[in-house]
Amino acid sequence: MKKLDAVSFDKVSISDGFWSDRIDRNKNVTVFSVRDRFKATGRFEAFRFNWTEGSDIPKPHYFWDSDVAKWIESVAYILKDEPQHELRKEAEELIELMEKNQCEDGYFNIYHTVVAPQLRFKNRDNHELYCLGHFIEAAVAFFEATGDGRLLEITDRYIDLVIKVFCEEKSADFVTPGHEEIELALIRLYRLKKDKKYLELARFFIDQRGQKEEQLCDWYNSSYNQSHLPVRQQKEVMGHSVRACYLYSAMADLAKETDDEELLEACRALFDDITERKMYITGGVGSSCHGEAFTVKYDLPNDTAYAETCASIALMMFADRMKDIDLDSRYGDIVEKTIYNGIISGISLDGRSFFYENPLEINIADHSRHTSLVRHGERLPITKRKEVFDCSCCPPNMTRFLASVGGHIFSCNEKDIFVHQFIPCNAQINGSFVNIETEYPKNGKVRISIKDAEGKRLFVRIPAWCRNFSISSDYEKINGYAVIGVTGDDFEIELDFKMEVRFIKCSELVRANEGKCAVMCGPVVYCMEKTDNDFEHYEIQLDTASDPQICFSEYFNANVIRLNAFRNKIDCGLYSDISDFEKEAVEVRLIPYFGFANRGDSSMAVWLRY
Amino acid sequence: MKKLDAVSFDKVSISDGFWSDRIDRNKNVTVFSVRDRFKATGRFEAFRFNWTEGSDIPKPHYFWDSDVAKWIESVAYILKDEPQHELRKEAEELIELMEKNQCEDGYFNIYHTVVAPQLRFKNRDNHELYCLGHFIEAAVAFFEATGDGRLLEITDRYIDLVIKVFCEEKSADFVTPGHEEIELALIRLYRLKKDKKYLELARFFIDQRGQKEEQLCDWYNSSYNQSHLPVRQQKEVMGHSVRACYLYSAMADLAKETDDEELLEACRALFDDITERKMYITGGVGSSCHGEAFTVKYDLPNDTAYAETCASIALMMFADRMKDIDLDSRYGDIVEKTIYNGIISGISLDGRSFFYENPLEINIADHSRHTSLVRHGERLPITKRKEVFDCSCCPPNMTRFLASVGGHIFSCNEKDIFVHQFIPCNAQINGSFVNIETEYPKNGKVRISIKDAEGKRLFVRIPAWCRNFSISSDYEKINGYAVIGVTGDDFEIELDFKMEVRFIKCSELVRANEGKCAVMCGPVVYCMEKTDNDFEHYEIQLDTASDPQICFSEYFNANVIRLNAFRNKIDCGLYSDISDFEKEAVEVRLIPYFGFANRGDSSMAVWLRY
Repeated sequence: MKKLDAVSFDKVSISDGFWSDRIDRNKNVTVFSVRDRFKATGRFEAFRFNWTEGSDIPKPHYFWDSDVAKWIESVAYILKDEPQHELRKEAEELIELMEKNQCEDGYFNIYHTVVAPQLRFKNRDNHELYCLGHFIEAAVAFFEATGDGRLLEITDRYIDLVIKVFCEEKSADFVTPGHEEIELALIRLYRLKKDKKYLELARFFIDQRGQKEEQLCDWYNSSYNQSHLPVRQQKEVMGHSVRACYLYSAMADLAKETDDEELLEACRALFDDITERKMYITGGVGSSCHGEAFTVKYDLPNDTAYAETCASIALMMFADRMKDIDLDSRYGDIVEKTIYNGIISGISLDGRSFFYENPLEINIADHSRHTSLVRHGERLPITKRKEVFDCSCCPPNMTRFLASVGGHIFSCNEKDIFVHQFIPCNAQINGSFVNIETEYPKNGKVRISIKDAEGKRLFVRIPAWCRNFSISSDYEKINGYAVIGVTGDDFEIELDFKMEVRFIKCSELVRANEGKCAVMCGPVVYCMEKTDNDFEHYEIQLDTASDPQICFSEYFNANVIRLNAFRNKIDCGLYSDISDFEKEAVEVRLIPYFGFANRGDSSMAVWLRY
Repeated sequence: MKKLDAVSFDKVSISDGFWSDRIDRNKNVTVFSVRDRFKATGRFEAFRFNWTEGSDIPKPHYFWDSDVAKWIESVAYILKDEPQHELRKEAEELIELMEKNQCEDGYFNIYHTVVAPQLRFKNRDNHELYCLGHFIEAAVAFFEATGDGRLLEITDRYIDLVIKVFCEEKSADFVTPGHEEIELALIRLYRLKKDKKYLELARFFIDQRGQKEEQLCDWYNSSYNQSHLPVRQQKEVMGHSVRACYLYSAMADLAKETDDEELLEACRALFDDITERKMYITGGVGSSCHGEAFTVKYDLPNDTAYAETCASIALMMFADRMKDIDLDSRYGDIVEKTIYNGIISGISLDGRSFFYENPLEINIADHSRHTSLVRHGERLPITKRKEVFDCSCCPPNMTRFLASVGGHIFSCNEKDIFVHQFIPCNAQINGSFVNIETEYPKNGKVRISIKDAEGKRLFVRIPAWCRNFSISSDYEKINGYAVIGVTGDDFEIELDFKMEVRFIKCSELVRANEGKCAVMCGPVVYCMEKTDNDFEHYEIQLDTASDPQICFSEYFNANVIRLNAFRNKIDCGLYSDISDFEKEAVEVRLIPYFGFANRGDSSMAVWLRY
């Protein structure tokens, strides 16, 4: 196991460019917008524990705690940079309400205290431990950001109760949580506090999963929450994709903390199964709304794609953990794929609204056709982002992701520095200072300057998408990384990953993409919106031999592309001889996939005929 | 209105070739096989009316009467040629049981007598009038074949009751039947007996439909059985496709009998809507299993295609009627399309088993994937024909179609003879004798000899698929027909409709066929089965510039085709640069669509990438 240390986002200061813009909007717009929607829906008010039957305040839902926990975690990340940010007070008020309303025995869950106390630890799918997991993550973040340990104390009391109920008395009606999350949270807490009890509890929940039959949720079988097999025997990803990737992240964490090679081997197999058979080109996963789940291999429909925003975030978390235990550039590649595509497609460019589902194709006409909906079985995803959802896991997952994106750039060990992502920043790593300058993904030029690292090695990920690159220094290639010896106190190298328009073909085994290609430039996947074109995406065939034009768009803060294509005339009746179909040359305009559906309802497609 | 007289199949003797073979198999195998299955399932036994609660004989279903009625109709057609065919006795026994068990007041329906007498005329969707319609058709056929009028007397008594209940007392719980059929049957009976009461009752049911809100069936709205609008206002086909096409057939019949131009105009619009927007290239209609229904325009998915065998037969019936009131070759084109493709795909080559649904694509792997089924919402059609279905409308519909296929070849009026289909036969038409010699659809050479027709005109349909043909005589072209003056008592012409392999493209508005083409040769649609090829249909792209080879196959009694194609190698991972995909030249073997699924489970596709 080649273990690296993560370099936390708080060691990294992102200076400008693509991400800086988004981080600022998150801090100034999104986190407020999410707060407003959470207040409007009663999620904050619920922390007062004053709902009673018949009262006119909204009835708490059992996953509301987790929504607010993720919001507190987001605020904590923001406080790291701006300790006096105005949201601090609101986060502290919530923590104070938690202190006040925590049960005597340490239990804390709004729904199971004010609505259905009789259900405490009765229903495996009621998200109690999931909510605790998110409170733990918030507690760690809040403590690291502010030194305020009150939330940590609250969760610690609750964790002690959980140890008693689940490990000692075994008095709960289930052994492992129906929705994973607490496992990775506990290991995160263990890394902060070094108390083995957290690691042991995480290990208990991870190891017990799938050992014996447990309560099923109402609609799904045991694979829905990865309980069909002991985790070490799982080689195929199954079930709810967010739950799955949270579990796999925790498995990677546990493998790292305990040097568990068997567990690492399972993680590798699961990672391969996702990325080689069950992942959209955008890094979206979980193709079906039925169970928000992984289905069978190569089943990646475009218009009904579920590809939940949270699932891309969870896949990114899994990949990001793997990069630090199994040195291979493919993990950083998947982090890159998700963060430039399937994650940020989940938020509007103005930072105010969200997609839960991220389809790869929209045919607006289908949305007025009842039979299409029936045919697809699944719902067609919505075509406009919304400010809030009943199940609002994605918005605060987005805010915590954006506020901590700097944490995915580097890793280190005692003698090496690893650059996984190309984001302009300054970082302090094990006594060295690293500066990255780049306009990535506008272009692939990257300058890395390092101070005080004489004798260390610099590992720089060579993106899998790039076949044409230059590096200003001698290097060796190890597992997809360019490895460069750092010389002198002021070392500098320049890399240039040529960003050309690439036409990507999908495996023939994915039936949805037969005869089609996707267009990428650097890590960014492109799509065609009707908004920019006089014709529908299904009318055209790309001319892949033509010379595409790349130009920068201020609106998208990214490149847009113009391509030649042929448009088939469609006035030949239902069936006609092939020779009757005339083609005309047209120009097609493509935009970054992450920017789709920002300019009103529009048809859209990633996969285009060629 | 250009009214022609149909030339009934009994005036036509089919001599050999493609159809003769099938007619013989129907007479010698299929009609027995259907009888055996109907006996095994209790459908014949039910006519003894001896089912009681708790008895061990199968409980009759309310549509069983119609299954057996269609079987009697089939037997009648066979008796026309072979009056002493061994099935005559069995048909007569059924008729005798009907005589014995008909209610005093004329009512006859097994289910509503022995199982649920309290439901008589209560439930619009219980198929009582539908069953009567099929008994009327059987009665007419049996009388015409044998002169035996007993079944006609039975149905006549029942019809009088229906007139009393529906038109005079109006005491039924509905006004018009939930499943159309009786309307066209009554007009057929009117043509035999010339009694206006039958025409008036048909007109009543046709005209009342959609005039006011009626009982809905449990799952569907009023368009399911075409009750959403008065029929003259219907311009868009909707709902259950068999019901729809039976209604449209009756509308065409009524328009013809009453010179109703407004009704004819509605028929034209409905025919256009089907054939220009909602029909598979095979002549299959009703693309969704939900309601066995037409959906929205251009919604023609291949793998979940419902395209019920009965619906293609019903479309053929509608087109066949239209050809005699609205002279235009497109009606004969649609008859041809259905009879060489979407109808006969419904029966196995050995004549023993049936498809209810006729998909245009099978991906065998999908059938083991639960999630694919869920995704499609609809069931994937079965991949092997079955001997009987619970709802077994298609098998006896097939037997009556095959036994009477000669009735679709000709029409006439006092001075002209019309040839719509190219089937080798002898016919007696208004005192003239017509002989057709052809190997169609093996090739397009047709020799037509006419005796005793001096001074008449011969109209020969020029198939829409044919752009390259020769006719040995001068002709004028009228509405898609070559019109030739008959000279002399022994007149003969030769036509040659060149049968070349054609690549057919579908409108771009049909999303399922994007970037694909279908292969036809003459009227026959081809498909690719895995059985004949070393690769799956989704791995290849046809080379439409190559020179296809046509060869005759004894097995299919039709041509098969070999084509050049490119096969994409599929070992490039999930996503790869387009340039990484290598192609190899392969030969693809295609078989007639009607012959698919006769050699074990196999993937299959009509629409292939090019």
